[in-house]
Amino acid sequence: MAVPTFLNLPDRESKPRPKGVTAVIDSGLTLGGFRDFLESAHPYVDFVKFGWGTAVVTPTLDEKIAILRQHGIEFWFGGTLFEIAYAQGKLDEMVAWAKDLGVSHFEVSDGTIQMKTVEKARLIERLSADFLVLSEVGSKDAAEVMSPSQWIRQIRAELDAGAWRVIAEGRESGTAGIYRDTGDVRLGLIQELEEGGIDFDKMFFETPQKVQQVWFLSHLGPNVNMANIAPRDVIGLETLRLGLRSDTVKFSLPKIRD
Amino acid sequence: MAVPTFLNLPDRESKPRPKGVTAVIDSGLTLGGFRDFLESAHPYVDFVKFGWGTAVVTPTLDEKIAILRQHGIEFWFGGTLFEIAYAQGKLDEMVAWAKDLGVSHFEVSDGTIQMKTVEKARLIERLSADFLVLSEVGSKDAAEVMSPSQWIRQIRAELDAGAWRVIAEGRESGTAGIYRDTGDVRLGLIQELEEGGIDFDKMFFETPQKVQQVWFLSHLGPNVNMANIAPRDVIGLETLRLGLRSDTVKFSLPKIRD
Amino acid sequence: MAVPTFLNLPDRESKPRPKGVTAVIDSGLTLGGFRDFLESAHPYVDFVKFGWGTAVVTPTLDEKIAILRQHGIEFWFGGTLFEIAYAQGKLDEMVAWAKDLGVSHFEVSDGTIQMKTVEKARLIERLSADFLVLSEVGSKDAAEVMSPSQWIRQIRAELDAGAWRVIAEGRESGTAGIYRDTGDVRLGLIQELEEGGIDFDKMFFETPQKVQQVWFLSHLGPNVNMANIAPRDVIGLETLRLGLRSDTVKFSLPKIRD
Repeated sequence: MAVPTFLNLPDRESKPRPKGVTAVIDSGLTLGGFRDFLESAHPYVDFVKFGWGTAVVTPTLDEKIAILRQHGIEFWFGGTLFEIAYAQGKLDEMVAWAKDLGVSHFEVSDGTIQMKTVEKARLIERLSADFLVLSEVGSKDAAEVMSPSQWIRQIRAELDAGAWRVIAEGRESGTAGIYRDTGDVRLGLIQELEEGGIDFDKMFFETPQKVQQVWFLSHLGPNVNMANIAPRDVIGLETLRLGLRSDTVKFSLPKIRD
Repeated sequence: MAVPTFLNLPDRESKPRPKGVTAVIDSGLTLGGFRDFLESAHPYVDFVKFGWGTAVVTPTLDEKIAILRQHGIEFWFGGTLFEIAYAQGKLDEMVAWAKDLGVSHFEVSDGTIQMKTVEKARLIERLSADFLVLSEVGSKDAAEVMSPSQWIRQIRAELDAGAWRVIAEGRESGTAGIYRDTGDVRLGLIQELEEGGIDFDKMFFETPQKVQQVWFLSHLGPNVNMANIAPRDVIGLETLRLGLRSDTVKFSLPKIRD
Repeated sequence: MAVPTFLNLPDRESKPRPKGVTAVIDSGLTLGGFRDFLESAHPYVDFVKFGWGTAVVTPTLDEKIAILRQHGIEFWFGGTLFEIAYAQGKLDEMVAWAKDLGVSHFEVSDGTIQMKTVEKARLIERLSADFLVLSEVGSKDAAEVMSPSQWIRQIRAELDAGAWRVIAEGRESGTAGIYRDTGDVRLGLIQELEEGGIDFDKMFFETPQKVQQVWFLSHLGPNVNMANIAPRDVIGLETLRLGLRSDTVKFSLPKIRD
């Protein structure tokens, strides 16, 4: 292997990592592209999410799951699929299907449909019996802005209900939830979450845009958990975590740049 | 196959579809990527267009065509190639070459060169003897804006001349023709086309951007014909047609969201 | 091969080309994608740069280099890797590693770290003993704007020091160096470089965005050297060089459009 070892780089834990996790979104990769991707990048991929309802129109889903197993990578289905199944009264069917597939993680979200807080907590609790539940907070509608105190209440309630991790909504585009519709990070929100005592190791931040990855790494450190990473950006994200790109070079050159 | 069947989803006709067509643009895929793409997504791909003059610099064009044949997918060459051949006085040569390849569809456009309306109609008529002609209306120059009545006159004239379908220009970028240079849909134009009695089943709308796909689906329904779809967006577009993504969830949850 | 030969197109020299060079940036392609890409597009690819520090996190670097050798394509490592090695006092180790790999080209840049002009010249001179040196001018920080006269002085000094080519910074995003943070070309800068007598055949312009490629081709001709070209854009760029796309159709239709 030609990979150079002459540099001093920040430590990165190897998989399974308790934090510094990279969760990739599959928005419809070809089967060949999926196989290539994981063969090349598996050391840097902790999870794959089959985005929103793409699983339903992926004829090669079985083959993709077999490839994930081969690399020991866990996966889950996008929250929108859960929301549709739930709203159609088909949650039992979805759970049975997921169990059949041997799925270990399950996302519970309310980014599209309306759901009462107690009902969401009840679902998290129920699904936690069978899965590690990722609950998602935040709306997919950029116009629906929640106050920081609502975010904090909801994150706490969902962890209390048994959520394994809480995902902070950003969409595949990075233009809702924790972002303004321009893609700018809602700085005040993240600051209030921190001051409010939220444990960021329990959070996955959806950071699809490079500039958003740079912001979270710069403010929360190289081991922040990030989700909705496009497959083509995984190598680039790893260089950002290690200070191998201009934007985060402070991680590899701490004395030279702050 | 792991694809879940527990949801109630809108009906989608299978291929060959009279409408609800997805026409993909190949802007220069690798041969391997092209093969992977069609193996994975062929049920959702009705046509492939070799964008503008890319065919001329694609050393593996024969192999790509063989793959299309294997999946029973028709294809055509971007209108710019026709326009250059025509303007160079080489249309006969281009037609002979296309016939040699067994091409069944042919695009006639004037998005780049100037062409009199009667001349374009004459060409459509002539080429219709050998091919199913797709004629394209609209300029590739975002500064050249045609009035809705011009659009209607031209679409009618080209269908009358024998065009099989009329393509509404949007470019690969989605920033000309039926769009402003910002990518915003020219709402008034589409509305006037509808009020003017244009048969949208005869139209292919170029909708490269997701937000444009969402707009056309929301306004013209899940079975609108769309062209200039990037290969990587085909699965995503299919989820939009089926109401499996937040933006068009009204298709799968009609009672819950309007 | 089905490629049509009926059109009159501008001449393009075949490889190795003294100018009209396309240098691709690999930002983290999969191994399979890399192989497919070069099998399909090798006639149009003159160089591959392993972007910034991606080489360090590319487990399949050896295999990628073997594929490049197979196609006779030269490569180099992004300047940021050099800058980090230099700043960590590990330049000797990096040079030894590069020699071991049989690398022929080497980038010397100061887009991230501060370096005195004489020190950069000294490094260019030193590395020119072992490599063809590409020196890069311009900052990766869009806020750090150099005056045109500084650009001219620096380009001259680096060529005098032995640089084989000088790269004009644009980043992978096209939003720094020769561009404003909006991606707009710094027109006045390019004009002053030309009036200042800079030999553009000695320059590689980083032109990641299509609109930037179109600008440089339109102003400096079809044989301008371009770098930071995304693999997926190589076929498209070749059509732009040959006048096979609307934006540069003047190259294939000189009498019709200017």
